[in-house]
Amino acid sequence: MMHHDGSALYVPDQNPRLGSTVDVFLRTSLSTTVVHVRSVRDGEPAFAAATPALRGDELWWRARVEVRNPVTRYRFLVDGDWYTAAGRFAHDVPDAFDFRIVAHPAPPPWTREAIVYQVFPDRFARTTASGDPSLAAWDEPVRHSPDQRYGGDLDGVTRHLGHIQDLGADTVYLTPFFPAPSNHRYDAASFDRVDPLLGGDKALRRLADAVHTRGMRLVGDLTTNHTGITHPWVTSSPEVYCHAPDGSFETWMGVPSLPKLDWRSPRLRELFATAPDSVVRKWLRYLDGWRIDVANMTGRRGADDLTVEVSRLLAREVRAARPDALLVAEHAHGAGGDLDADGWQGTMNYAGFLRPLWSWLRGPSFDPPDFLGVPGGIPRRDGTAVVRTIQAVQASMSWRSWTHSWNLLGSHDTARIHTVTGDPARAEVAVGLLATLPGVPMIFAGDEFGLTGTNGELSRTPLPWGAPTLPWYGDLLALRRKHPALRNGGLRFAHVSSDAIAFWRETPDERLLVLARRAPGTPIPAPAEGTNLYGGAPLAGTLPADGPTLQVWSVCP
Amino acid sequence: MMHHDGSALYVPDQNPRLGSTVDVFLRTSLSTTVVHVRSVRDGEPAFAAATPALRGDELWWRARVEVRNPVTRYRFLVDGDWYTAAGRFAHDVPDAFDFRIVAHPAPPPWTREAIVYQVFPDRFARTTASGDPSLAAWDEPVRHSPDQRYGGDLDGVTRHLGHIQDLGADTVYLTPFFPAPSNHRYDAASFDRVDPLLGGDKALRRLADAVHTRGMRLVGDLTTNHTGITHPWVTSSPEVYCHAPDGSFETWMGVPSLPKLDWRSPRLRELFATAPDSVVRKWLRYLDGWRIDVANMTGRRGADDLTVEVSRLLAREVRAARPDALLVAEHAHGAGGDLDADGWQGTMNYAGFLRPLWSWLRGPSFDPPDFLGVPGGIPRRDGTAVVRTIQAVQASMSWRSWTHSWNLLGSHDTARIHTVTGDPARAEVAVGLLATLPGVPMIFAGDEFGLTGTNGELSRTPLPWGAPTLPWYGDLLALRRKHPALRNGGLRFAHVSSDAIAFWRETPDERLLVLARRAPGTPIPAPAEGTNLYGGAPLAGTLPADGPTLQVWSVCP
Repeated sequence: MMHHDGSALYVPDQNPRLGSTVDVFLRTSLSTTVVHVRSVRDGEPAFAAATPALRGDELWWRARVEVRNPVTRYRFLVDGDWYTAAGRFAHDVPDAFDFRIVAHPAPPPWTREAIVYQVFPDRFARTTASGDPSLAAWDEPVRHSPDQRYGGDLDGVTRHLGHIQDLGADTVYLTPFFPAPSNHRYDAASFDRVDPLLGGDKALRRLADAVHTRGMRLVGDLTTNHTGITHPWVTSSPEVYCHAPDGSFETWMGVPSLPKLDWRSPRLRELFATAPDSVVRKWLRYLDGWRIDVANMTGRRGADDLTVEVSRLLAREVRAARPDALLVAEHAHGAGGDLDADGWQGTMNYAGFLRPLWSWLRGPSFDPPDFLGVPGGIPRRDGTAVVRTIQAVQASMSWRSWTHSWNLLGSHDTARIHTVTGDPARAEVAVGLLATLPGVPMIFAGDEFGLTGTNGELSRTPLPWGAPTLPWYGDLLALRRKHPALRNGGLRFAHVSSDAIAFWRETPDERLLVLARRAPGTPIPAPAEGTNLYGGAPLAGTLPADGPTLQVWSVCP
Repeated sequence: MMHHDGSALYVPDQNPRLGSTVDVFLRTSLSTTVVHVRSVRDGEPAFAAATPALRGDELWWRARVEVRNPVTRYRFLVDGDWYTAAGRFAHDVPDAFDFRIVAHPAPPPWTREAIVYQVFPDRFARTTASGDPSLAAWDEPVRHSPDQRYGGDLDGVTRHLGHIQDLGADTVYLTPFFPAPSNHRYDAASFDRVDPLLGGDKALRRLADAVHTRGMRLVGDLTTNHTGITHPWVTSSPEVYCHAPDGSFETWMGVPSLPKLDWRSPRLRELFATAPDSVVRKWLRYLDGWRIDVANMTGRRGADDLTVEVSRLLAREVRAARPDALLVAEHAHGAGGDLDADGWQGTMNYAGFLRPLWSWLRGPSFDPPDFLGVPGGIPRRDGTAVVRTIQAVQASMSWRSWTHSWNLLGSHDTARIHTVTGDPARAEVAVGLLATLPGVPMIFAGDEFGLTGTNGELSRTPLPWGAPTLPWYGDLLALRRKHPALRNGGLRFAHVSSDAIAFWRETPDERLLVLARRAPGTPIPAPAEGTNLYGGAPLAGTLPADGPTLQVWSVCP
């Protein structure tokens, strides 16, 4: 056994100052004899001996790390082996997956405690009278079309805030609300006003007021990579876009309606970021933060790679406008290189959460031709592969960025989790992991009703108001809200096999054990005794062998 | 079997233009059914199907990659598994270790073909009459002191160029030649002139002329992180140094005589880089390039991380002064993040060569208290760990940076390889790997005489001119010079076990098989038949089980 992560149990100073020296703790088995910590200071490795302290059947080691740089990398040397965020190695490994202490300004505390509820406005709830012939009936099947509009509006969100709050979410994330030709509105025709079809600026103000009255938060969605081709900048400020050698607009993935913004442009930086009434600042009068669309491509084009610079610029302006604002990036693969740079606080964790969980929990009847763009369908992985993926993605960023990233089981861009699992019991396991693993849970509106959908377009189902919701959504999210260890505790795996994954979530004050099973199996020895908090199985002798199941126990620290 | 690397066999276009599309080839076993290549374009992954072609008992796959960015990352999806530069994975992995195509300007061709001979001027050869009482006698034992001077000079290097060339080296790398208080001269008292004790500017000119007349190259050593405290800038331009809050100079690792340069300073950039007669430009009248001292710390200090920016600045100025110049960085750990940035062409490969080889080949009697600063002595690793380290470090940079890095078995900063191995046969294996693995071989002057030394200071032994040299140094380097596959071929491991490592070096025209054995073992089936080029053992049926040994065979392509 050997464990360290960036949580308070192992790094008590969660917001270290640049230049300070902090304690880091490692726990090992009793057979460990010598431990050093290696940290990199101004580019040069330095070693410090760790001192041991016996705690029960574990040896804990304490070492000191000087926070010399805004991102200080460190690793342990344990009886000749290296121990990094990627695991233990009996050979030399490069620094890419060292642990990281980050001394940039910390994100506001609420952003890690949040439970996010994603609303696709056109499909959430409609408050205007029906009868507009251009709108689909609320129960009309969803078509794969940008033109099919149901007429959902922001007052509809306001009306149903109680539903969202009762579910256990405290942060409403709206996909774009600016006017746009399409129903998804990622092709903005303006950043100056809220789409009148959604109720206009006043509806946003009503929503923001209602959200804040409830002590909740409201997050918007900003396209920093492109606008729609009908955006006024296309004619008024064409210099803010990327142009091909022939003068034509360059576009997102070749889609002609989405001209790509050129972040080399001073005018763009002014309009979007630095002007007092810039896009990113203005709406923070109402919003508590932004989710940044296509952050992985923003500022990247051929020889230019301005992504990190843009992330810092936006973070600075967001912080100036609203010091407690959230700023999360859409980056669905390998985001490690863009994080911990005083820009994005985290990403939407497709890579280290959705993909591994889908490949563990998908049902036999869901077999799309590709896996979110990766050819060959969804591979069926065992628990070991799932945990390896989680650890590999986690190791590519700081604990801070990992825990501020948004875990999700689906979104407006994917199939719904109930279609993926094809089984309520496995869906409950998925939501259980959403509620118990590190990272901010994001629920795509409608999942709590058990809605289905085989891809992003067809998942944008109008919400079936009046239908019953699945009770375990609320139960699991309530569990997360109640237990700090589920939000801020360390993550230590206790058992990993093909069909079962068990892990500890631990703070200095709380120890929780979680078991996720996708199928029945053989009994696993229980690592401790404890009190059941979810799932109903006792923790004595062995962990439950039945499944699918999600169990949570409290164990005395 | 599955293999791809950045060599011409797999990436025929070795110097791709930005915006071009290149072929990449993957070879697999016959059981492979579907292969895609994934490349990241402007931050977004894109997939392309590979097409198969049967070659003997292998399936080769051809795919196309658009070189959209200066560093374009790619990986293969093979029957649902990922194949990256770090190996094959049955689970998702982040992008850090993807293969990389680099479209920055390529280093000059000679820099990858070079064989480097490192000269520590004070200890190489003396041409002035002895009798100076401040100088040690040539046969006086080396003390651990910066004051002990033997009086070696540049004319001494000129005199022995025949020795260097006969050995097989074509590039002379001089540790610093500027005036300095110490015998190692890393504490420069000037960048304006060659130390008169070494013969002054005229001796450098004589050396450069003689080197170039022979068709050889001359590389200098530049301290970009610090100067000596006696440097005139300390009084004339104190603003080019880092200062503590109390106004005192900040220094390298707290050594008071080495004040740290501040690369935020415009004046420093001018003096060092951009002025027509700047330090980095001026000496390229005589030199063919620079080795950059402490490159890993240069420009790094607290909140500032200007290292990549400085590397680009220096590369630009070096290129302007001498388009065919070399620029290699000292960076002994985890250099991956600083490479492939249009700055350093490669590093001194302590991490991916010296350390793994030492830990494989060290003798039982060499057991220093630390391993080049890492506490706990030199671990004794088996062949598997060695290859894992080589692959891990290689995966952290492009093939281009890997093959332009300098492999070394020792330097003026370490023990000598003959002390490390304690056995001529194992030393021959070490030099054999130096001559046959990818990366530019660097020989520390004196190793060819079998000199010993237990650490960096004590390894700076005056050369025993007139003594015999070990014949296999020349033989192995001649082999490298003769066979393009050893310089530019791909690297594919054929066998890895505790005491034996066998690998292929392959170009489109040449196939070589290399066996390195640190000890006798059990016979290993030979993967082919071939003609012995070094070591004398036939290649038929099995690989030699005797050892230590280094064998090279040519196999028909």
